[in-house]
Formats: sequence, C-alpha cells, structure tokens
Amino acid sequence: MAYALYYWTGIQGRGEFVRLALEDAGADYVDVCRRDGDEAMVPFLAGRQPGAVPFAPPFLRDGRRVVAQTAAILAYLAPRLHLVPAGETTRLRAHQLQLTIADLVAEAHDTHHPLSADLYYEDQREAALARADAFRRERLPKYLRYFERELAGGAAPRVFARHSYVDLSLFQLMAGLDYAFPQAMRRLRRRTPRLRALAAQVAERPRLAAYLASPRRLPFNESGIFRHYPELDEPG
Amino acid sequence: MAYALYYWTGIQGRGEFVRLALEDAGADYVDVCRRDGDEAMVPFLAGRQPGAVPFAPPFLRDGRRVVAQTAAILAYLAPRLHLVPAGETTRLRAHQLQLTIADLVAEAHDTHHPLSADLYYEDQREAALARADAFRRERLPKYLRYFERELAGGAAPRVFARHSYVDLSLFQLMAGLDYAFPQAMRRLRRRTPRLRALAAQVAERPRLAAYLASPRRLPFNESGIFRHYPELDEPG
Repeated sequence: MAYALYYWTGIQGRGEFVRLALEDAGADYVDVCRRDGDEAMVPFLAGRQPGAVPFAPPFLRDGRRVVAQTAAILAYLAPRLHLVPAGETTRLRAHQLQLTIADLVAEAHDTHHPLSADLYYEDQREAALARADAFRRERLPKYLRYFERELAGGAAPRVFARHSYVDLSLFQLMAGLDYAFPQAMRRLRRRTPRLRALAAQVAERPRLAAYLASPRRLPFNESGIFRHYPELDEPG
Repeated sequence: MAYALYYWTGIQGRGEFVRLALEDAGADYVDVCRRDGDEAMVPFLAGRQPGAVPFAPPFLRDGRRVVAQTAAILAYLAPRLHLVPAGETTRLRAHQLQLTIADLVAEAHDTHHPLSADLYYEDQREAALARADAFRRERLPKYLRYFERELAGGAAPRVFARHSYVDLSLFQLMAGLDYAFPQAMRRLRRRTPRLRALAAQVAERPRLAAYLASPRRLPFNESGIFRHYPELDEPG
C-alpha cells in the first residue's frame, strides 16, 4: 500500500524533507493534500482518525499507522526505503543529525517570525532584523561548521559512508539557506566545501534530479520556512 | 557500566528530562559535570572523543556510544530502563510526544530570548514581552490542549496505559511552566485536569519523590530554560 504524506500545499516547508526521501527512493506515495486539498488533514489533526494524532503537519500514514514529527517520520521511513545503513548506533547518529537539522530549520523560520507565527512578517520586521543578524553571525556558521565537520568523517563515518536520508536533508537545508540568505551563504562558501560537494552530488541523483525538474518540486516562496527577505540577509 | 550524563551545571534545562528518567528508573549513572565541572564536556563537543559529536548538551555516554539530542537520548534509554512499553508503534508515539514536548520547551525558552541566545534578557525585553504574550495566548493553550487530549486516551492509549518516560517529561514540562508562567498556568488549570493529575502522580513515585527532595534536584532559576520574569506572565 502506498504511503500517504500530509502537508500544506503551496510550500516546501518541513514536508519537503519527507518528500525528498520518498522521491529519492522511488517510493509509492500519495501527496494527499496536493490531490485533495489541505482540509484532508483536518480529521487527523482533530483526532477523528485512528492512529497517533499529529500536533502539526507533516505527518505520514502507512496503513493504520500515523507518524508525525519530521525527524520521527524519517527515522521510521528510512530503514523501509533503504535510506539508512543498518545498526542501532548508525541509525541513532543519523537521527541525531536530522534532529540537529530540525533545530536549524526552526531557527531559520524564526528569523522572519521571531515574535509570533500568528503575526505577519511586516508586523515583526524590527525584531526579525535583530534575530536574523544574530542568526547569520552566530548560529548559521556554528551549525554549518558542525555539519561540515561531521561530513569530514570524524564523528559519523558510517552515516556518510553510504547515501542516506541525512544527505537528502542536508541538500534541502543548503538549498533553503541559499534561497533565504544568499549573501551570508556566499560568505560561508569557502568554509563549507563538503556540504557544497554533497549538495551537488545529491542534486544529480537520477530520481532526485527528475523530481527537482518536475512540477512536484515547488519553488521556495515567502510563505514557507525559508524566505528571502533581502533585508534579513544584509549585514546589520 | 554506569551511564554518564553530560549537561551544564547550575540549571535543570534540557538535561533534567534525561535525569528524571535515570532517577525514576534507579539507574546507575554519573552526572559528570556536577562532579567534574562543565569543562568535562569540551572534548566531546570538540570532537576529540570517539562516538558521535554532540552539537550541544545534554548528551549521554553509554560505554563507547555517545547520544545527543534530548528526545533521542530518551528514545535510546527508555527501553533499557523499562520506561516505555514494547512495540514499534507505541515507541514511535512516545517519541513523537517527546519531540512535541521539545518543541514547546524551545518555544518557552524563546519567550525570554526571542532575538538571540547571545544577548542578555534585558537587552531583548521588549521583544520578549511580545513573544511571551503570543506564547501565553496562542501556543501554550494549544500545546496543553493537545497533551490533555492525548492523555484522554484517544490517541496514545498504549503510551499512557503504563508509566513511561513521557509521563516524566510531562511532569517536568508542567513544573517548568508553573514556575515561569504561574498566572497563565492558573488560568489554564480547569482545562488541564489530566495533566495536573499526571504531574501529581509522578511527583509521588517513591524514587522520584526522593530525588525531588534531594539536593540533586536544582531549583528553577533565571539562567535556565524556564525563567520567571513576572512581566512575561502578565496579560499584555
């Protein structure tokens, strides 16, 4: 039976990390909201469906199982899609890396919504300028240095010895950051050679290249997590 | 061999979620930094130790294994400490709940540090007032309603049928929120009967009660994640 992915239509968002795994593996899946609209999520979020009740999208239905939380979905899917090596230690390390990617994604989101997700960007722009400045100066280099070092093999050799979902997530992370913070990412280019090489490799994987060239791959936009507001990318 | 927990001395922070599991299970563990100081973490964070390199504390060493990310540490420990029922579906649900708790913890942190963790609270107080207001009005009730409903059994009956680490984490969450936002939590009291009952039950577990009464349980304070700044608890 096909996997069913539930996520907001119109943005890549956190759903894209799951979508990349499904696409790269050539998995049989339905992108339910793109077929039936966002309201297809309501019965799940309202607890009117069997299975775990998600706090928020994305979530995945696999038969009677419902799995929410992006990193948990990937930890669940990856062994089934052959997107993680065997072994508890290696899978734990992959999961830790994915959770750290999730932390960076949340921080990237909060650069444009530092006060409230319920306010417009324009209504929290001053705070966004301050948060984005700290993000570009402190947090972004710290995270990328960490992933770069992990790719160098000291810490997670078995995770990166073979292609895994963590590669796909790092690709997506770099794509989103390049979109949102092109200047800051350009300045970090010389310090991120391994991340750059990995992202280029991932983009050339046949199934993934086909997906990226298809209409299923939405463009980044200013409703998603990674948004390009030029003022948030300018040195303060 | 004893588990070794690494976390900042001086605060409960995210380390406390792991500590509660170890204490409740009566596990053999060393709270390394409290014995040797925070600098005991440096070789791990700098990648000079074998095993996974943590991005940040807390992390756990179990022999040659190093596990970071609070929710991943608990997912790793819980089966070993008999703090989660058997079965992939149940464990996945427990992990999702823990990840959702982690999201709320991060949002609670950002009420006092909405702009940057590298700035003092006093230097981001205006933004903190706005973020805390949105947190108290929108996010906090939404999360607590979600956990309350999960406890009602619709969604996660197997997780809550027996004592598990998720109970401990919900206890800690309520304790922290009560400390940081006593007024807001008082207003939510009638809507959180199951969370209140669970927290009271957990506090009476013999090993946990002994731990909570011991000097090992640090008081909450204004260096931790849950901070009591009265102005952040006042309706705006």
